[in-house]
Amino acid sequence: MPYIPLKEELPGITGLLDFRQDTALPIRQLTQILLRGESTLTEGERELIASVASSGNQCKFCTAAHSAAANLLLSDPSIAEKAIQDPGSAPVSGKMRALLTIAAAVPKMGTPVTPSMVEAARSQGATDLELHDTVLISALFSLYNKYVDGLASVTPSEPGFYDRLAHILKDKGYMPSADRYAKL
Amino acid sequence: MPYIPLKEELPGITGLLDFRQDTALPIRQLTQILLRGESTLTEGERELIASVASSGNQCKFCTAAHSAAANLLLSDPSIAEKAIQDPGSAPVSGKMRALLTIAAAVPKMGTPVTPSMVEAARSQGATDLELHDTVLISALFSLYNKYVDGLASVTPSEPGFYDRLAHILKDKGYMPSADRYAKL
Repeated sequence: MPYIPLKEELPGITGLLDFRQDTALPIRQLTQILLRGESTLTEGERELIASVASSGNQCKFCTAAHSAAANLLLSDPSIAEKAIQDPGSAPVSGKMRALLTIAAAVPKMGTPVTPSMVEAARSQGATDLELHDTVLISALFSLYNKYVDGLASVTPSEPGFYDRLAHILKDKGYMPSADRYAKL
Repeated sequence: MPYIPLKEELPGITGLLDFRQDTALPIRQLTQILLRGESTLTEGERELIASVASSGNQCKFCTAAHSAAANLLLSDPSIAEKAIQDPGSAPVSGKMRALLTIAAAVPKMGTPVTPSMVEAARSQGATDLELHDTVLISALFSLYNKYVDGLASVTPSEPGFYDRLAHILKDKGYMPSADRYAKL
């Protein structure tokens, strides 16, 4: 049960973003820019970074939600699980494998992204902006992961929930709208 | 040395927020609302939460910056160090000791904020919104901490740097301005 009163029909992050909407707006805007804005990484690749980072923070809700979104956008029902199990051998491009290795390191304590990880990504063609965005997406999901778990919001156990949420994230992105969760 | 090219005169988070200003804006807006907006917690108390959370993530730059801001705003040069050493016995109100204990738990892996921590805060008068904001401020600083350390931005060793930064945070808050770092 959540530590503060949240709407029962809005589990995970959704009820928290509803609880305080003035703080939710810049969180949503930042996510929209990073995960849906112009980028040399596809939307599916960026959802994969979110999924790997959330798994590193052991946040079950966010891992399930963004794995479902990555699987849907990349048209591969097992891509997120493979990326989480071993980012360095996931069936993605060499550049993405190197960026996912960085995304998996960001949640760890201290300064876990090493110069050799960065060098490996650069040798696969990663740009400054791709390195920046990989770290900032991972850092943003540390915010989400800690927010969700720090207030003990509900993690639905029904897999269909995450499929429905993935379709909302694919079709509507991250900005607020009145009927956003009508089909949740 | 940072993993991406940042301006030398802008160490820590400041160069990162300059590097990509479209993503910096919502991060700054969220921080301004949470740390400087209307609240039943003082600005100094909220900076103390940021300092304790940053220490939990072992981010030296953010810990030093927000400790200096908390010390300045609370007119006590050792308050942040005491809160970091032991949030439960810091020389602040009973409610703040309970909220700082929660702030220190948020960075830990899994679901480290326990029902008994929340109950302790409520018994000291903490409201739903104060609990929410304590967790969200801590979660926001997980974003900052991972962003700063994940890209290996520079941590100045000169204590005077953090005093100057604390005065900027006190006088100007978190929103961008052209001459924001003129006195850094």
